[in-house]
Amino acid sequence: VKTHLQTLSREAEATRAEANQEALTRLCESQPVLVDVARALDVVPGMTPTTILTSGPPLPVERYTGGQRRAILYGAVFEGLAQDLDDAERKLASGEITVSNCHGHGCVGSVAGIYTASMPVFVVENETYGNRGFCNFYEGESRRRLNYGAYDDEVRQGLLFIAETLAPVIREAVRRAGGIPLRPIMRRAITMGDELHSRNTAGTTLFMKELAPHLLELGIGGELDADAVRRSLAFMYESDYFFLRLSMAAAKATADAAHGIEGSSVVTAMTLSCAGFAIRVSGLGDAWFEGPPAVVEAKLFEGFTDEDIEWIGGESHITETVGLGGFCQAAAFALQAYQGGSPQAMAAMNEEMYEITVGEHTEFKIPFFGYRGTPVGIDLFRVLETGIAPVIDGGLAGRNGGQIGAGILKAPLECFERAAAAYVERA
Amino acid sequence: VKTHLQTLSREAEATRAEANQEALTRLCESQPVLVDVARALDVVPGMTPTTILTSGPPLPVERYTGGQRRAILYGAVFEGLAQDLDDAERKLASGEITVSNCHGHGCVGSVAGIYTASMPVFVVENETYGNRGFCNFYEGESRRRLNYGAYDDEVRQGLLFIAETLAPVIREAVRRAGGIPLRPIMRRAITMGDELHSRNTAGTTLFMKELAPHLLELGIGGELDADAVRRSLAFMYESDYFFLRLSMAAAKATADAAHGIEGSSVVTAMTLSCAGFAIRVSGLGDAWFEGPPAVVEAKLFEGFTDEDIEWIGGESHITETVGLGGFCQAAAFALQAYQGGSPQAMAAMNEEMYEITVGEHTEFKIPFFGYRGTPVGIDLFRVLETGIAPVIDGGLAGRNGGQIGAGILKAPLECFERAAAAYVERA
Repeated sequence: VKTHLQTLSREAEATRAEANQEALTRLCESQPVLVDVARALDVVPGMTPTTILTSGPPLPVERYTGGQRRAILYGAVFEGLAQDLDDAERKLASGEITVSNCHGHGCVGSVAGIYTASMPVFVVENETYGNRGFCNFYEGESRRRLNYGAYDDEVRQGLLFIAETLAPVIREAVRRAGGIPLRPIMRRAITMGDELHSRNTAGTTLFMKELAPHLLELGIGGELDADAVRRSLAFMYESDYFFLRLSMAAAKATADAAHGIEGSSVVTAMTLSCAGFAIRVSGLGDAWFEGPPAVVEAKLFEGFTDEDIEWIGGESHITETVGLGGFCQAAAFALQAYQGGSPQAMAAMNEEMYEITVGEHTEFKIPFFGYRGTPVGIDLFRVLETGIAPVIDGGLAGRNGGQIGAGILKAPLECFERAAAAYVERA
Repeated sequence: VKTHLQTLSREAEATRAEANQEALTRLCESQPVLVDVARALDVVPGMTPTTILTSGPPLPVERYTGGQRRAILYGAVFEGLAQDLDDAERKLASGEITVSNCHGHGCVGSVAGIYTASMPVFVVENETYGNRGFCNFYEGESRRRLNYGAYDDEVRQGLLFIAETLAPVIREAVRRAGGIPLRPIMRRAITMGDELHSRNTAGTTLFMKELAPHLLELGIGGELDADAVRRSLAFMYESDYFFLRLSMAAAKATADAAHGIEGSSVVTAMTLSCAGFAIRVSGLGDAWFEGPPAVVEAKLFEGFTDEDIEWIGGESHITETVGLGGFCQAAAFALQAYQGGSPQAMAAMNEEMYEITVGEHTEFKIPFFGYRGTPVGIDLFRVLETGIAPVIDGGLAGRNGGQIGAGILKAPLECFERAAAAYVERA
């Protein structure tokens, strides 16, 4: 590492510092606003009727294996592109169905991160910088969900409810609201025990509070089927993680605004596929720097062991790249019940993140740290100098599909080493 | 103190321990449920059209002075019992208007705690023990409120809005819900940064979430004026302290269930009037044990100094008697922005409360303490043995009416000394 840094000229170092400050500014100044809800096909750049998006860096189709591959095939079946898994395999091989990576299309995937053309997505616009981020919907409290690699008639019915009932209601409410600024909700949720990755209870409740007057108008006005409004409210009532997808879309719109700053060594995305972990860096273009899977300290649901964990993808850690999740754990001590650990360990891990980041968030502040801003802007060189890996709060998928627990992931240093080498070469 | 305790026989000590365990059980097992909203006159025991309730122990009318007296007079004017303050004074003197203490009527007063006959109250039933507690409504975010001793046309309009618009809507929603259990909301709010005395942001949001489907039905069904539903939702949207009155009514219904256990030295109410602080003890009947005002460490709004603080009453510290507020501060680090202090000091103060309480709450748990139950059941003898005064989170009124800040109050030990003497005498 030191060797890498020593090879940078003084001038290059100054450029890097300046570029990283610019990345920090963009991360802090971004104003993500939920402006619409729409079909992926209608708004996601590059989406086609036969495209399936999944988590991870772009991979040749044969590198998708195990649960992530199954999730892609299930997506094809759900979308009506294939009759069954075998049919889907054939069409994948023939190129009739194409697979692409979420990040390449302005999206972020939760766990396997399956997007198909008909799925509704949140459209989040970064009002400061003009770019957009997308995320599809939380499927509900069942452990069996397509994004966790599970599929059956219940999963299918759930996805249809989201597309046909929930999304139109939320769309109408959002349009009536003239868009819903997400930053104030996120800032507030952090003072109410959320870190907005593995805990979104406050965010969801605050979002419902924003929607409530508009849902009421929809009920009074009678433009939409009253039962659809009722059922949508009931779904959100039960879904403490509902806001996660808004947090992810907001984080994507934010991180993308900080991407592409020449000379910046700030990480703008971290992603996970069945093939391993990968990161992207602001000043290093579209390249992804791969490594092995993350190391995890898991708290599993009863009946499961570490042997049952399978990596089927995940890029909700986009939240960590913008100063949330593991970088904001000391705001969310309630999380210990879900992902293990002690309040002391959570605070210590959170505090360590200040050592690998460029600055402190000017908007997202942690009450337990005396309202200190969250650590934000992961500098790949600081990671390598300190040997401190970014911590990530995450849900865990099982070998047989479905969620089997949660835990704290650490990003593998190999990704950062490769990125550093590329950085030095470019500089 | 030791002398007091030493005079208790071994048998009396055993009785006390057992009685305190019973008090603890009742505090933990109480299940407060919001069952209705009604006019004070219709539901508050002993209420008459000419009664005005106020905070503090029962006092002869001449002992109400300054801001608290003015608040009582304003209450008379608001209720239409008097034309102006002079007229109200005359009627107070003649007995045409009577003043009584909230606690004597199943109510608890926020700050001056003015209740008049026409005011709506929350009716909270303790489903486990069958008793009821009442509290009137939060007046909104203005610093000028009747409960803070302020009165003008705006205050009056606000009170009328509550009585004529807000209360009927909430009543209808609560009835449609078949009652709203408050304990689950309270338990959850504590994991979302509330201590349910000086911070009620999560409680309010969660309560709105419970009401939302019923408000929607009211909108769809058209039984109530749609605009009333709209305005009620808008009021709650703006009122982060809305839930405080529910927390207080729930705490009152809980503390009263633990009152009247022969031999128990557990404090079942703490109250403040312009004449000073007072406590009530489970095993000591209806007696109040008075002392000087609380000591306060204040964080005042800009432009005010400690000289501006006036004690005009307050018994929202009923929340502290059931393990909330100051006894739950380590769940609400965000409070530092409102009432001052550091997270470390808040945690330390909260931790100290375990030294003066009989046990730990089985339902209300603090994430920062690894989900340890909140300290609950203040034992007056432990207070005296340790010299540790109960800490109370509280809002502060100014000399000229209105809220001027917030702070941390410490209950005066004199009250506990007097109670101990009475206890020993009775035993």
